[in-house]
Amino acid sequence: MTGTLYGLGLGPGDPELMTLKAVRILKSVPVIAWPAPDTGPSFAREIAAPHLPGGQIEVAIVVPMRTERFPAQDVYDRAADEISAHLDAGRDVAVLCEGDPFFYGSFMYLHERLAHRYPTLVVPGVSSMMAAASAAGRPLAARNDVLSVLPGPLSDAELTNRINSAGAVAIIKIGRHFKRLRTLIEDLNLTPHAVYVERVSLAAQRLMPLSEVPDDTAPYFSMILIYKGGEDWVANLPSPGSQL
Amino acid sequence: MTGTLYGLGLGPGDPELMTLKAVRILKSVPVIAWPAPDTGPSFAREIAAPHLPGGQIEVAIVVPMRTERFPAQDVYDRAADEISAHLDAGRDVAVLCEGDPFFYGSFMYLHERLAHRYPTLVVPGVSSMMAAASAAGRPLAARNDVLSVLPGPLSDAELTNRINSAGAVAIIKIGRHFKRLRTLIEDLNLTPHAVYVERVSLAAQRLMPLSEVPDDTAPYFSMILIYKGGEDWVANLPSPGSQL
Ligand SMILES: C[S@@+](CC[C@H](N)C(=O)[O-])C[C@H]1O[C@@H](n2cnc3c(N)ncnc32)[C@H](O)[C@@H]1O
Ligand SMILES: C[S@@+](CC[C@H](N)C(=O)[O-])C[C@H]1O[C@@H](n2cnc3c(N)ncnc32)[C@H](O)[C@@H]1O
Repeated sequence: MTGTLYGLGLGPGDPELMTLKAVRILKSVPVIAWPAPDTGPSFAREIAAPHLPGGQIEVAIVVPMRTERFPAQDVYDRAADEISAHLDAGRDVAVLCEGDPFFYGSFMYLHERLAHRYPTLVVPGVSSMMAAASAAGRPLAARNDVLSVLPGPLSDAELTNRINSAGAVAIIKIGRHFKRLRTLIEDLNLTPHAVYVERVSLAAQRLMPLSEVPDDTAPYFSMILIYKGGEDWVANLPSPGSQL
Repeated sequence: MTGTLYGLGLGPGDPELMTLKAVRILKSVPVIAWPAPDTGPSFAREIAAPHLPGGQIEVAIVVPMRTERFPAQDVYDRAADEISAHLDAGRDVAVLCEGDPFFYGSFMYLHERLAHRYPTLVVPGVSSMMAAASAAGRPLAARNDVLSVLPGPLSDAELTNRINSAGAVAIIKIGRHFKRLRTLIEDLNLTPHAVYVERVSLAAQRLMPLSEVPDDTAPYFSMILIYKGGEDWVANLPSPGSQL
Protein backbone atom coordinates (compact mmCIF):
# COMPACT_ATOMS: atom_id res chain seq x y z
CA MET A 1 0.00 0.00 0.00
CA THR A 2 2.09 2.89 -1.27
CA GLY A 3 0.98 6.49 -0.96
CA THR A 4 -0.34 8.65 -3.80
CA LEU A 5 1.69 11.40 -5.42
CA TYR A 6 -0.26 14.60 -6.09
CA GLY A 7 0.85 17.47 -8.28
CA LEU A 8 -1.30 20.29 -6.92
CA GLY A 9 -1.89 23.33 -9.10
CA LEU A 10 -2.28 26.25 -6.69
CA GLY A 11 -3.05 29.03 -9.16
CA PRO A 12 -1.15 32.26 -9.85
CA GLY A 13 -0.75 33.62 -6.32
CA ASP A 14 -4.04 34.68 -4.71
CA PRO A 15 -4.85 31.83 -2.30
CA GLU A 16 -8.52 32.29 -3.22
CA LEU A 17 -7.68 31.21 -6.76
CA MET A 18 -6.94 27.70 -5.51
CA THR A 19 -9.48 25.09 -6.56
CA LEU A 20 -11.68 23.31 -4.04
CA LYS A 21 -9.93 20.11 -5.06
CA ALA A 22 -6.46 21.45 -4.38
CA VAL A 23 -7.56 22.76 -0.98
CA ARG A 24 -9.16 19.46 -0.05
CA ILE A 25 -6.11 17.41 -1.00
CA LEU A 26 -3.72 19.91 0.55
CA LYS A 27 -5.49 19.61 3.91
CA SER A 28 -5.63 15.81 3.77
CA VAL A 29 -2.04 14.81 3.03
CA PRO A 30 0.56 14.03 5.69
CA VAL A 31 3.46 15.28 3.52
CA ILE A 32 3.85 18.37 1.36
CA ALA A 33 6.82 19.12 -0.88
CA TRP A 34 7.58 22.46 -2.46
CA PRO A 35 10.23 24.06 -4.62
CA ALA A 36 12.10 27.07 -3.32
CA PRO A 37 14.88 29.10 -4.88
CA ASP A 38 18.12 29.16 -2.89
CA THR A 39 17.64 32.93 -2.78
CA GLY A 40 14.34 33.23 -0.95
CA PRO A 41 11.01 31.76 0.12
CA SER A 42 8.89 29.28 -1.83
CA PHE A 43 6.14 31.04 -3.77
CA ALA A 44 4.14 27.81 -3.96
CA ARG A 45 4.29 27.40 -0.19
CA GLU A 46 3.22 31.03 0.30
CA ILE A 47 0.12 30.45 -1.84
CA ALA A 48 -0.80 27.34 0.13
CA ALA A 49 0.03 28.78 3.55
CA PRO A 50 -3.44 30.11 4.51
CA HIS A 51 -4.89 26.65 3.86
CA LEU A 52 -2.30 24.50 5.63
CA PRO A 53 -3.72 22.68 8.64
CA GLY A 54 -0.33 22.56 10.38
CA GLY A 55 1.65 19.55 11.53
CA GLN A 56 2.47 18.25 8.05
CA ILE A 57 5.87 16.90 7.14
CA GLU A 58 7.51 19.29 4.68
CA VAL A 59 10.04 18.46 1.98
CA ALA A 60 11.85 21.54 0.66
CA ILE A 61 13.26 21.25 -2.84
CA VAL A 62 15.90 23.93 -3.00
CA VAL A 63 16.64 24.82 -6.60
CA PRO A 64 19.80 26.77 -7.39
CA MET A 65 18.93 30.00 -9.21
CA ARG A 66 22.43 31.06 -10.14
CA THR A 67 22.15 29.60 -13.57
CA GLU A 68 19.69 30.11 -16.41
CA ARG A 69 20.06 26.50 -17.37
CA PHE A 70 17.53 23.90 -16.39
CA PRO A 71 18.07 23.09 -12.79
CA ALA A 72 20.60 20.58 -11.74
CA GLN A 73 19.08 17.15 -12.15
CA ASP A 74 20.62 15.92 -8.93
CA VAL A 75 18.40 18.27 -6.90
CA TYR A 76 15.39 16.46 -8.36
CA ASP A 77 17.03 13.06 -7.94
CA ARG A 78 17.43 13.72 -4.25
CA ALA A 79 13.93 15.18 -3.86
CA ALA A 80 12.46 12.17 -5.69
CA ASP A 81 14.30 9.84 -3.29
CA GLU A 82 13.01 11.68 -0.27
CA ILE A 83 9.44 11.71 -1.63
CA SER A 84 9.66 8.02 -2.56
CA ALA A 85 10.56 7.13 1.00
CA HIS A 86 7.29 8.72 2.16
CA LEU A 87 5.27 7.07 -0.62
CA ASP A 88 6.84 3.68 0.14
CA ALA A 89 5.82 4.13 3.77
CA GLY A 90 2.23 4.65 2.62
CA ARG A 91 2.16 8.40 3.11
CA ASP A 92 0.50 10.55 0.41
CA VAL A 93 2.66 13.42 -0.81
CA ALA A 94 1.37 16.63 -2.39
CA VAL A 95 3.85 18.59 -4.46
CA LEU A 96 2.83 22.26 -4.41
CA CYS A 97 2.91 23.84 -7.87
CA GLU A 98 2.49 27.50 -8.65
CA GLY A 99 -0.09 28.04 -11.43
CA ASP A 100 -0.84 24.88 -13.37
CA PRO A 101 1.56 21.95 -12.76
CA PHE A 102 1.91 20.98 -16.42
CA PHE A 103 2.17 24.45 -17.95
CA TYR A 104 5.96 24.89 -17.96
CA GLY A 105 6.05 23.77 -14.34
CA SER A 106 9.04 22.23 -12.59
CA PHE A 107 6.74 19.51 -11.27
CA MET A 108 7.59 17.64 -14.47
CA TYR A 109 11.02 16.81 -13.06
CA LEU A 110 9.44 14.91 -10.19
CA HIS A 111 6.64 13.51 -12.31
CA GLU A 112 9.07 11.90 -14.75
CA ARG A 113 10.95 10.30 -11.87
CA LEU A 114 7.98 9.07 -9.84
CA ALA A 115 4.73 8.78 -11.83
CA HIS A 116 5.53 5.36 -13.29
CA ARG A 117 6.18 3.97 -9.82
CA TYR A 118 3.31 5.38 -7.74
CA PRO A 119 -0.37 6.22 -8.17
CA THR A 120 -0.26 9.82 -9.35
CA LEU A 121 -2.88 12.52 -9.73
CA VAL A 122 -2.21 15.91 -11.26
CA VAL A 123 -4.72 18.58 -10.24
CA PRO A 124 -4.79 21.36 -12.83
CA GLY A 125 -4.68 24.93 -11.60
CA VAL A 126 -5.40 28.44 -12.82
CA SER A 127 -2.39 29.43 -14.88
CA SER A 128 -0.67 32.79 -14.51
CA MET A 129 -1.27 33.34 -18.22
CA MET A 130 -5.03 33.23 -17.80
CA ALA A 131 -4.83 35.35 -14.65
CA ALA A 132 -2.75 37.93 -16.51
CA ALA A 133 -5.40 38.30 -19.22
CA SER A 134 -8.14 38.61 -16.59
CA ALA A 135 -6.18 41.28 -14.76
CA ALA A 136 -5.47 43.11 -18.02
CA GLY A 137 -9.19 43.04 -18.78
CA ARG A 138 -8.97 41.73 -22.32
CA PRO A 139 -9.33 38.24 -23.80
CA LEU A 140 -6.06 36.45 -24.35
CA ALA A 141 -7.36 34.77 -27.48
CA ALA A 142 -10.70 34.82 -29.20
CA ARG A 143 -12.55 33.35 -32.16
CA ASN A 144 -9.99 31.67 -34.42
CA ASP A 145 -6.86 33.41 -33.12
CA VAL A 146 -3.67 31.44 -32.96
CA LEU A 147 -2.18 31.83 -29.49
CA SER A 148 1.56 31.33 -29.07
CA VAL A 149 3.26 30.98 -25.74
CA LEU A 150 6.91 31.91 -26.02
CA PRO A 151 9.59 31.47 -23.35
CA GLY A 152 11.80 34.56 -23.09
CA PRO A 153 15.11 32.64 -23.35
CA LEU A 154 14.40 31.80 -27.03
CA SER A 155 16.71 33.48 -29.55
CA ASP A 156 15.87 36.85 -31.09
CA ALA A 157 15.40 35.24 -34.50
CA GLU A 158 12.98 32.67 -33.22
CA LEU A 159 11.02 35.14 -31.12
CA THR A 160 10.73 37.57 -34.04
CA ASN A 161 9.47 34.89 -36.32
CA ARG A 162 6.94 33.58 -33.79
CA ILE A 163 5.68 36.98 -32.72
CA ASN A 164 5.19 38.03 -36.34
CA SER A 165 3.17 35.00 -37.23
CA ALA A 166 0.91 34.63 -34.17
CA GLY A 167 -2.42 36.33 -33.53
CA ALA A 168 -1.93 36.55 -29.79
CA VAL A 169 1.28 36.15 -27.82
CA ALA A 170 2.24 35.55 -24.21
CA ILE A 171 5.95 35.78 -23.40
CA ILE A 172 6.79 34.03 -20.16
CA LYS A 173 10.06 33.64 -18.21
CA ILE A 174 11.10 37.16 -19.13
CA GLY A 175 13.19 37.89 -15.99
CA ARG A 176 16.68 38.89 -16.99
CA HIS A 177 15.74 38.85 -20.69
CA PHE A 178 13.48 41.82 -20.17
CA LYS A 179 15.66 44.48 -21.79
CA ARG A 180 16.38 42.36 -24.85
CA LEU A 181 12.70 41.45 -25.23
CA ARG A 182 11.66 45.07 -24.96
CA THR A 183 14.09 46.09 -27.71
CA LEU A 184 12.90 43.24 -29.89
CA ILE A 185 9.22 44.17 -29.45
CA GLU A 186 10.09 47.80 -30.17
CA ASP A 187 11.89 46.79 -33.38
CA LEU A 188 8.73 44.95 -34.46
CA ASN A 189 6.70 48.12 -33.80
CA LEU A 190 4.59 46.19 -31.33
CA THR A 191 5.34 48.15 -28.15
CA PRO A 192 1.97 49.97 -28.30
CA HIS A 193 0.26 46.57 -28.30
CA ALA A 194 2.14 45.08 -25.35
CA VAL A 195 1.15 44.82 -21.69
CA TYR A 196 3.49 44.00 -18.84
CA VAL A 197 2.10 42.02 -15.88
CA GLU A 198 4.07 41.30 -12.72
CA ARG A 199 3.02 39.15 -9.73
CA VAL A 200 -0.49 38.81 -11.08
CA SER A 201 -3.31 38.32 -8.55
CA LEU A 202 -1.14 39.28 -5.58
CA ALA A 203 -1.39 42.55 -3.64
CA ALA A 204 1.98 43.42 -5.20
CA GLN A 205 0.59 43.05 -8.74
CA ARG A 206 1.90 45.56 -11.28
CA LEU A 207 0.22 45.90 -14.65
CA MET A 208 0.96 48.58 -17.24
CA PRO A 209 1.65 49.22 -20.89
CA LEU A 210 5.10 47.86 -21.73
CA SER A 211 6.06 51.36 -22.86
CA GLU A 212 5.65 52.62 -19.29
CA VAL A 213 7.74 50.06 -17.44
CA PRO A 214 10.44 52.13 -15.73
CA ASP A 215 12.78 49.23 -14.97
CA ASP A 216 15.40 47.52 -17.08
CA THR A 217 14.93 44.12 -15.52
CA ALA A 218 11.88 42.17 -14.50
CA PRO A 219 11.36 39.72 -11.67
CA TYR A 220 10.89 36.03 -12.34
CA PHE A 221 7.12 36.25 -11.87
CA SER A 222 6.27 38.51 -14.77
CA MET A 223 5.13 38.20 -18.36
CA ILE A 224 4.34 40.23 -21.46
CA LEU A 225 1.08 39.87 -23.39
CA ILE A 226 1.00 41.17 -26.97
CA TYR A 227 -2.45 42.11 -28.14
CA LYS A 228 -2.16 42.73 -31.85
CA GLY A 229 -4.69 45.35 -32.84
CA GLY A 230 -5.13 46.29 -29.19
CA GLU A 231 -3.17 49.52 -29.18
CA ASP A 232 -6.04 51.88 -28.33
CA TRP A 233 -6.95 49.70 -25.45
CA VAL A 234 -3.36 49.37 -24.21
CA ALA A 235 -3.00 53.16 -24.32
CA ASN A 236 -5.93 53.46 -21.93
CA LEU A 237 -4.78 50.97 -19.34
CA PRO A 238 -4.63 52.38 -15.83
CA SER A 239 -1.28 53.98 -15.09
CA PRO A 240 1.70 52.11 -13.57
CA GLY A 241 1.22 50.59 -10.20
CA SER A 242 -2.52 51.07 -9.99
CA GLN A 243 -4.57 48.00 -9.32
CA LEU A 244 -7.30 47.11 -11.83
CA MET B 1 -24.86 52.51 -7.16
CA THR B 2 -24.78 50.10 -10.07
CA GLY B 3 -24.04 46.41 -9.61
CA THR B 4 -20.78 44.68 -10.49
CA LEU B 5 -20.40 42.43 -13.51
CA TYR B 6 -18.45 39.24 -12.85
CA GLY B 7 -17.05 36.89 -15.47
CA LEU B 8 -16.66 33.71 -13.44
CA GLY B 9 -14.29 31.05 -14.71
CA LEU B 10 -15.75 27.73 -13.55
CA GLY B 11 -13.06 25.36 -14.76
CA PRO B 12 -13.31 22.49 -17.24
CA GLY B 13 -16.28 20.57 -15.82
CA ASP B 14 -15.59 18.97 -12.46
CA PRO B 15 -17.32 21.28 -9.96
CA GLU B 16 -14.43 20.65 -7.57
CA LEU B 17 -12.13 22.40 -10.04
CA MET B 18 -13.88 25.69 -9.35
CA THR B 19 -11.79 28.20 -7.43
CA LEU B 20 -12.72 29.31 -3.92
CA LYS B 21 -13.19 32.80 -5.36
CA ALA B 22 -15.63 31.68 -8.04
CA VAL B 23 -17.63 29.71 -5.46
CA ARG B 24 -17.77 32.65 -3.07
CA ILE B 25 -18.94 35.09 -5.74
CA LEU B 26 -21.36 32.60 -7.23
CA LYS B 27 -23.07 32.16 -3.86
CA SER B 28 -23.23 35.90 -3.18
CA VAL B 29 -24.79 37.32 -6.35
CA PRO B 30 -28.52 37.85 -6.84
CA VAL B 31 -28.34 37.26 -10.60
CA ILE B 32 -26.53 34.63 -12.67
CA ALA B 33 -26.36 34.54 -16.45
CA TRP B 34 -25.22 31.59 -18.52
CA PRO B 35 -24.87 30.62 -22.14
CA ALA B 36 -26.73 27.62 -23.45
CA PRO B 37 -26.88 26.13 -26.93
CA ASP B 38 -30.36 26.02 -28.46
CA THR B 39 -29.84 22.26 -28.66
CA GLY B 40 -29.39 21.36 -24.99
CA PRO B 41 -28.46 22.32 -21.46
CA SER B 42 -25.89 24.91 -20.40
CA PHE B 43 -22.56 23.28 -19.56
CA ALA B 44 -21.54 26.31 -17.49
CA ARG B 45 -24.72 26.08 -15.44
CA GLU B 46 -24.17 22.34 -14.91
CA ILE B 47 -20.69 23.00 -13.50
CA ALA B 48 -22.04 25.63 -11.13
CA ALA B 49 -25.17 23.71 -10.12
CA PRO B 50 -23.81 21.93 -6.99
CA HIS B 51 -22.75 25.31 -5.59
CA LEU B 52 -25.90 27.35 -6.33
CA PRO B 53 -27.65 28.48 -3.18
CA GLY B 54 -31.05 28.60 -4.95
CA GLY B 55 -33.40 31.53 -5.39
CA GLN B 56 -31.16 33.48 -7.76
CA ILE B 57 -32.52 35.26 -10.82
CA GLU B 58 -31.25 33.48 -13.93
CA VAL B 59 -30.61 34.97 -17.36
CA ALA B 60 -30.31 32.33 -20.08
CA ILE B 61 -28.30 33.35 -23.14
CA VAL B 62 -29.45 30.97 -25.83
CA VAL B 63 -26.89 30.77 -28.58
CA PRO B 64 -27.88 29.26 -31.93
CA MET B 65 -25.62 26.31 -32.78
CA ARG B 66 -26.79 25.74 -36.34
CA THR B 67 -23.98 27.77 -37.75
CA GLU B 68 -20.23 27.52 -37.40
CA ARG B 69 -19.97 31.26 -37.67
CA PHE B 70 -19.53 33.42 -34.63
CA PRO B 71 -22.83 33.66 -32.91
CA ALA B 72 -25.39 36.17 -33.94
CA GLN B 73 -24.48 39.47 -32.37
CA ASP B 74 -28.12 40.26 -31.59
CA VAL B 75 -28.25 37.41 -29.06
CA TYR B 76 -25.49 39.18 -27.14
CA ASP B 77 -27.08 42.59 -27.65
CA ARG B 78 -30.24 41.35 -26.02
CA ALA B 79 -28.41 39.53 -23.22
CA ALA B 80 -26.35 42.67 -22.53
CA ASP B 81 -29.55 44.71 -22.28
CA GLU B 82 -31.10 42.27 -19.85
CA ILE B 83 -27.92 42.16 -17.74
CA SER B 84 -27.63 45.98 -17.79
CA ALA B 85 -31.11 46.32 -16.39
CA HIS B 86 -30.03 44.27 -13.35
CA LEU B 87 -26.76 46.18 -12.98
CA ASP B 88 -28.59 49.52 -13.24
CA ALA B 89 -30.90 48.37 -10.47
CA GLY B 90 -27.82 47.72 -8.29
CA ARG B 91 -27.84 43.95 -8.61
CA ASP B 92 -24.52 42.17 -9.14
CA VAL B 93 -24.52 39.75 -12.06
CA ALA B 94 -22.21 36.75 -12.46
CA VAL B 95 -21.79 35.40 -15.96
CA LEU B 96 -20.91 31.71 -15.74
CA CYS B 97 -18.02 30.74 -18.00
CA GLU B 98 -16.82 27.25 -18.71
CA GLY B 99 -13.01 26.99 -18.27
CA ASP B 100 -11.29 30.35 -18.20
CA PRO B 101 -13.44 33.33 -19.31
CA PHE B 102 -10.75 34.95 -21.49
CA PHE B 103 -9.35 31.82 -23.13
CA TYR B 104 -11.49 31.72 -26.29
CA GLY B 105 -14.58 32.21 -24.16
CA SER B 106 -17.86 33.69 -25.34
CA PHE B 107 -17.85 35.93 -22.27
CA MET B 108 -15.91 38.40 -24.43
CA TYR B 109 -19.12 39.26 -26.29
CA LEU B 110 -20.71 40.49 -23.08
CA HIS B 111 -17.48 41.98 -21.75
CA GLU B 112 -17.06 44.19 -24.81
CA ARG B 113 -20.62 45.43 -24.46
CA LEU B 114 -20.65 46.04 -20.70
CA ALA B 115 -17.20 46.37 -19.13
CA HIS B 116 -16.78 50.05 -20.00
CA ARG B 117 -20.09 50.88 -18.35
CA TYR B 118 -20.00 48.88 -15.09
CA PRO B 119 -17.44 47.80 -12.50
CA THR B 120 -16.23 44.48 -13.87
CA LEU B 121 -14.18 41.67 -12.41
CA VAL B 122 -13.01 38.66 -14.38
CA VAL B 123 -12.14 35.65 -12.23
CA PRO B 124 -9.77 33.36 -14.10
CA GLY B 125 -10.50 29.65 -14.12
CA VAL B 126 -8.79 26.36 -14.82
CA SER B 127 -8.77 26.00 -18.57
CA SER B 128 -9.76 22.80 -20.34
CA MET B 129 -6.35 22.84 -22.03
CA MET B 130 -4.54 22.55 -18.70
CA ALA B 131 -7.01 19.95 -17.47
CA ALA B 132 -6.47 17.91 -20.65
CA ALA B 133 -2.72 17.78 -20.07
CA SER B 134 -3.24 16.78 -16.43
CA ALA B 135 -5.62 14.02 -17.46
CA ALA B 136 -3.23 12.85 -20.17
CA GLY B 137 -0.46 12.71 -17.56
CA ARG B 138 2.16 14.61 -19.48
CA PRO B 139 3.27 18.27 -19.42
CA LEU B 140 1.68 20.40 -22.09
CA ALA B 141 4.81 22.46 -22.48
CA ALA B 142 8.15 22.42 -20.74
CA ARG B 143 11.46 24.20 -20.62
CA ASN B 144 11.70 26.46 -23.70
CA ASP B 145 8.99 24.81 -25.80
CA VAL B 146 6.84 27.00 -27.98
CA LEU B 147 3.20 26.15 -27.31
CA SER B 148 0.66 26.90 -30.04
CA VAL B 149 -3.06 26.83 -29.49
CA LEU B 150 -4.87 26.28 -32.77
CA PRO B 151 -8.60 26.50 -33.38
CA GLY B 152 -9.83 23.61 -35.56
CA PRO B 153 -11.68 25.84 -38.07
CA LEU B 154 -8.36 27.23 -39.39
CA SER B 155 -7.49 26.22 -42.96
CA ASP B 156 -5.46 23.11 -43.72
CA ALA B 157 -2.56 25.21 -44.97
CA GLU B 158 -2.45 27.33 -41.85
CA LEU B 159 -2.79 24.36 -39.51
CA THR B 160 -0.04 22.44 -41.32
CA ASN B 161 2.29 25.35 -41.12
CA ARG B 162 1.60 25.97 -37.43
CA ILE B 163 1.75 22.36 -36.37
CA ASN B 164 5.06 21.89 -38.18
CA SER B 165 6.69 24.84 -36.52
CA ALA B 166 5.48 24.46 -32.92
CA GLY B 167 7.02 22.41 -30.15
CA ALA B 168 3.73 21.59 -28.49
CA VAL B 169 0.24 21.93 -29.94
CA ALA B 170 -3.31 21.99 -28.60
CA ILE B 171 -6.09 21.96 -31.20
CA ILE B 172 -9.37 23.21 -29.76
CA LYS B 173 -12.86 23.55 -31.27
CA ILE B 174 -12.40 20.34 -33.22
CA GLY B 175 -16.09 19.26 -33.32
CA ARG B 176 -17.21 18.77 -36.89
CA HIS B 177 -13.66 19.37 -38.15
CA PHE B 178 -12.50 16.16 -36.54
CA LYS B 179 -12.20 14.01 -39.66
CA ARG B 180 -10.35 16.68 -41.60
CA LEU B 181 -7.99 17.30 -38.67
CA ARG B 182 -7.28 13.62 -38.28
CA THR B 183 -6.35 13.31 -41.96
CA LEU B 184 -4.15 16.36 -41.74
CA ILE B 185 -2.31 15.05 -38.66
CA GLU B 186 -1.89 11.69 -40.39
CA ASP B 187 -0.41 13.38 -43.47
CA LEU B 188 2.11 15.09 -41.19
CA ASN B 189 3.05 11.68 -39.71
CA LEU B 190 2.08 12.98 -36.29
CA THR B 191 -0.76 10.57 -35.45
CA PRO B 192 1.47 8.51 -33.11
CA HIS B 193 2.15 11.70 -31.14
CA ALA B 194 -1.46 12.82 -30.76
CA VAL B 195 -3.89 12.37 -27.88
CA TYR B 196 -7.64 12.90 -28.05
CA VAL B 197 -9.41 14.21 -24.92
CA GLU B 198 -13.17 14.56 -24.64
CA ARG B 199 -15.19 16.06 -21.76
CA VAL B 200 -12.11 16.33 -19.61
CA SER B 201 -12.56 16.12 -15.82
CA LEU B 202 -16.15 14.85 -16.09
CA ALA B 203 -17.28 11.29 -15.35
CA ALA B 204 -17.88 11.01 -19.12
CA GLN B 205 -14.24 11.85 -19.89
CA ARG B 206 -12.71 9.93 -22.80
CA LEU B 207 -8.98 10.02 -23.38
CA MET B 208 -7.06 7.90 -25.87
CA PRO B 209 -4.43 7.95 -28.58
CA LEU B 210 -5.87 9.75 -31.63
CA SER B 211 -5.20 6.59 -33.63
CA GLU B 212 -7.74 4.70 -31.52
CA VAL B 213 -10.69 7.08 -31.75
CA PRO B 214 -13.44 5.00 -33.34
CA ASP B 215 -15.67 7.93 -34.33
CA ASP B 216 -15.62 10.20 -37.36
CA THR B 217 -16.91 13.22 -35.51
CA ALA B 218 -16.17 14.70 -32.12
CA PRO B 219 -18.39 16.57 -29.69
CA TYR B 220 -17.90 20.27 -29.06
CA PHE B 221 -16.08 19.64 -25.78
CA SER B 222 -13.03 17.84 -27.09
CA MET B 223 -9.49 18.65 -28.13
CA ILE B 224 -6.33 17.12 -29.55
CA LEU B 225 -2.92 17.51 -27.93
CA ILE B 226 0.14 16.85 -30.08
CA TYR B 227 3.17 15.80 -28.10
CA LYS B 228 6.07 15.87 -30.49
CA GLY B 229 8.55 13.23 -29.46
CA GLY B 230 5.94 11.64 -27.22
CA GLU B 231 5.10 8.64 -29.36
CA ASP B 232 6.26 5.94 -26.95
CA TRP B 233 4.26 7.50 -24.23
CA VAL B 234 1.14 7.93 -26.40
CA ALA B 235 1.35 4.28 -27.40
CA ASN B 236 1.14 3.31 -23.74
CA LEU B 237 -1.84 5.43 -22.78
CA PRO B 238 -4.64 3.45 -21.17
CA SER B 239 -7.05 2.04 -23.75
CA PRO B 240 -10.16 3.89 -24.99
CA GLY B 241 -12.75 4.75 -22.44
CA SER B 242 -10.70 3.91 -19.40
CA GLN B 243 -10.31 6.64 -16.85
CA LEU B 244 -6.78 7.70 -15.94
C1 LIG C 1 8.26 27.99 -14.99
S1 LIG C 1 6.89 28.96 -15.55
C2 LIG C 1 5.57 28.25 -14.59
C3 LIG C 1 4.18 28.74 -14.98
C4 LIG C 1 3.10 28.19 -14.07
N1 LIG C 1 3.12 26.73 -14.04
C5 LIG C 1 1.72 28.69 -14.46
O1 LIG C 1 0.86 27.90 -14.89
O2 LIG C 1 1.48 29.89 -14.32
C6 LIG C 1 7.22 30.47 -14.70
C7 LIG C 1 6.77 31.70 -15.48
O3 LIG C 1 5.36 31.86 -15.36
C8 LIG C 1 5.04 33.24 -15.30
N2 LIG C 1 4.36 33.50 -14.01
C9 LIG C 1 4.11 32.61 -13.04
N3 LIG C 1 3.44 33.18 -12.03
C10 LIG C 1 3.26 34.49 -12.35
C11 LIG C 1 2.63 35.59 -11.72
N4 LIG C 1 2.04 35.47 -10.53
N5 LIG C 1 2.62 36.77 -12.39
C12 LIG C 1 3.19 36.91 -13.60
N6 LIG C 1 3.81 35.89 -14.23
C13 LIG C 1 3.83 34.69 -13.63
C14 LIG C 1 6.33 34.02 -15.42
O4 LIG C 1 6.53 34.36 -16.77
C15 LIG C 1 7.35 33.00 -14.94
O5 LIG C 1 8.62 33.27 -15.47
C1 LIG D 1 -14.95 28.36 -27.02
S1 LIG D 1 -13.63 27.38 -26.39
C2 LIG D 1 -13.70 27.81 -24.69
C3 LIG D 1 -12.55 27.27 -23.85
C4 LIG D 1 -12.71 27.55 -22.37
N1 LIG D 1 -12.88 28.97 -22.13
C5 LIG D 1 -11.54 27.02 -21.55
O1 LIG D 1 -10.78 27.80 -20.96
O2 LIG D 1 -11.42 25.79 -21.48
C6 LIG D 1 -14.37 25.79 -26.45
C7 LIG D 1 -13.37 24.68 -26.73
O3 LIG D 1 -12.64 24.38 -25.56
C8 LIG D 1 -12.39 22.99 -25.49
N2 LIG D 1 -13.02 22.44 -24.27
C9 LIG D 1 -13.74 23.14 -23.38
N3 LIG D 1 -14.13 22.33 -22.36
C10 LIG D 1 -13.64 21.10 -22.63
C11 LIG D 1 -13.69 19.85 -21.95
N4 LIG D 1 -14.31 19.71 -20.77
N5 LIG D 1 -13.04 18.79 -22.51
C12 LIG D 1 -12.37 18.93 -23.68
N6 LIG D 1 -12.31 20.09 -24.36
C13 LIG D 1 -12.93 21.16 -23.84
C14 LIG D 1 -12.97 22.36 -26.74
O4 LIG D 1 -11.95 22.28 -27.71
C15 LIG D 1 -14.01 23.37 -27.12
O5 LIG D 1 -14.30 23.32 -28.51
